Amino acid sequence: MIHPVLSASGRISVSYRLSSPTLRAARALARAIALEQTVEIPEAAVPARLLDLIVGHVERVRRRASAWEAVISYQPRINGGEVPQFLNLLFGNISLLSGVRIEDLDLPPVVLRAFPGPSFGIAGLREICRVTVRRPLLSASAKPVGLTARQLAAICGKFARGGVDIVKDDHSLSDQRWAPFRERVARCQDAVERANAAAGTTAVFFPNLTAPVDQLEDRIDLLRKVGCRGVLVSPMILGLDTVRTLAGGSGLAILAHPMFAGAFFGARHGIAPNVLLGQVYRLIGADGVIYPNAGGRFPWTERACRALNQRLRAPLGAHRPSMPVAGGGVDAHRVRHWNRRYGPDMMYLIGSSFYMQRDLEGAARRVAEALRFS
Amino acid sequence: MIHPVLSASGRISVSYRLSSPTLRAARALARAIALEQTVEIPEAAVPARLLDLIVGHVERVRRRASAWEAVISYQPRINGGEVPQFLNLLFGNISLLSGVRIEDLDLPPVVLRAFPGPSFGIAGLREICRVTVRRPLLSASAKPVGLTARQLAAICGKFARGGVDIVKDDHSLSDQRWAPFRERVARCQDAVERANAAAGTTAVFFPNLTAPVDQLEDRIDLLRKVGCRGVLVSPMILGLDTVRTLAGGSGLAILAHPMFAGAFFGARHGIAPNVLLGQVYRLIGADGVIYPNAGGRFPWTERACRALNQRLRAPLGAHRPSMPVAGGGVDAHRVRHWNRRYGPDMMYLIGSSFYMQRDLEGAARRVAEALRFS
Repeated sequence: MIHPVLSASGRISVSYRLSSPTLRAARALARAIALEQTVEIPEAAVPARLLDLIVGHVERVRRRASAWEAVISYQPRINGGEVPQFLNLLFGNISLLSGVRIEDLDLPPVVLRAFPGPSFGIAGLREICRVTVRRPLLSASAKPVGLTARQLAAICGKFARGGVDIVKDDHSLSDQRWAPFRERVARCQDAVERANAAAGTTAVFFPNLTAPVDQLEDRIDLLRKVGCRGVLVSPMILGLDTVRTLAGGSGLAILAHPMFAGAFFGARHGIAPNVLLGQVYRLIGADGVIYPNAGGRFPWTERACRALNQRLRAPLGAHRPSMPVAGGGVDAHRVRHWNRRYGPDMMYLIGSSFYMQRDLEGAARRVAEALRFS
Repeated sequence: MIHPVLSASGRISVSYRLSSPTLRAARALARAIALEQTVEIPEAAVPARLLDLIVGHVERVRRRASAWEAVISYQPRINGGEVPQFLNLLFGNISLLSGVRIEDLDLPPVVLRAFPGPSFGIAGLREICRVTVRRPLLSASAKPVGLTARQLAAICGKFARGGVDIVKDDHSLSDQRWAPFRERVARCQDAVERANAAAGTTAVFFPNLTAPVDQLEDRIDLLRKVGCRGVLVSPMILGLDTVRTLAGGSGLAILAHPMFAGAFFGARHGIAPNVLLGQVYRLIGADGVIYPNAGGRFPWTERACRALNQRLRAPLGAHRPSMPVAGGGVDAHRVRHWNRRYGPDMMYLIGSSFYMQRDLEGAARRVAEALRFS
């Protein structure tokens, strides 16, 4: 049963890439998805009144390059206004199939309003960093794990003096014995504040809050006391709904890390980065979304990066735009190049490329100046 | 740098399948992984003292069928004893690569002890169901979403009278307006208790606890009051560490659903089901682990299912075995067949195959009897 193409207004509309051999097979798969993601019983067993109300409507199936595009729309009340059920509707059971990739998502206002979205967004991150002009922000990571809290704090101080806007913990730092959370946060925050006072800079320190969920409240209390303004989190590890609660309630800006999410980015099966990072991470409240930039250590194309930048900044209900954060092996010497291509509403996260230079402060200063005066 | 093959004792040992073109490329990728998952900076920038202490040790790289097997061992203290950092070490940044699949995992006692493991396990689930002989358990799902709480409760009652051991919510049921959580749980639990009283059966009702994380405590309080003994959760959606806190503290048995996890099960890239469902889900506390059985709606082979059954029951430190739960389209008429192949320490979860028969109670009774007297 193929429904006539409707305006998506009022319904959740999901666009899938299906690797089916024929149009007939693609249509059958689309219908199977519409059932699997809703009633999860065969069509013949669905009570008549629920066939139209609950089962997804297959809006269209058509050829698209070497595969098929199917659009299925869903009744918005089916997700109960909850992030977990929204994720279930999106890719719950069909994650267990193969050759099904979610490529686009169109959400009605009632669903968009159920998410917190970014509390700070692009403008709010600039405010936190006291950057009053429309230029890209520069971020750098304190690492590696295994250094002491004093050593990491010294690195933070160098980056701050060099003009880095956001000095953040590496995502591998949590509460390891070499640099326990409490000590590390206190020392790193102090080092950044001292550097600011001495050098007239305005850097902020964002620690890694990807921690056991039953310790989050205590860690957040500590961060507030110490004066931190934002944190790094890994939504796929912490749980996407847990990040939603942080965004709504912590008062801290949130930089979302893509770790553990890469399994979803298959070319044939999964969820396109534009949807998972570009829409879902923003909806649950990421003020900045880190992704692996083209030309770095991960196999992302410039085209995919540009599309994600655009998606994070595009209108999405009443939600603030999220800051695209290019990382994953950005070469300090190529930041000018990317800046010309990606525009001013960006953050660059530089790690290895700084650490390969002896003078961290000098290395940071060269990039900071390039971004300030480009 | 290839280290001599060590006994894994004392270290976290991860076995990867690498889709590299040559041995040389596979070795380079293994070394890149050992760095990426730990220090995340180039080898030349790693402080000398951390090269051996923190960077992973490449234990071996060898040909394996059409790909390469690499074994890398890690210092256990690097994960700080926390689930989020453990997941980061396992598949954090390398999830963003392609052609890297985790196929096995060997954990030292210090890491195994940091996880709660199942509070009930196979024996505990049988106790909850008052099953005193070593036979498979039978489970059935109340669905579909869109029915009222009264209608779902009537279905629960039929399954209970038919001899189903665990009547559970479908994973799509949360707090939708058609059957709000509070009303549904009260009615379904009551229906199962009445059926038990009338028919002399011992069924239990497990509701779906995959809910907004800031509502979990309230929902658990309600379940305790109503008298529920266990719940269904979806770890990949709720967050694996959130499930750990439930396992340790809720007093409820946990059935883990594989939804949203399928993106990890790629043949070339991801985490093998044996590791993610067979080890990680068990370690965070799943008493039963649902998977899509061979011959159902999902493309799993019998071989993969048998391997997972075995892994869930195998020794894992001092942790209890988890109950393998075959679902995802198990045909009621073929349960005898699977029972001969999978043995008694199993649960069968039947949905569609019951709903395709008019008489739910009779359909359940035939399978329940087959399992009792096989």
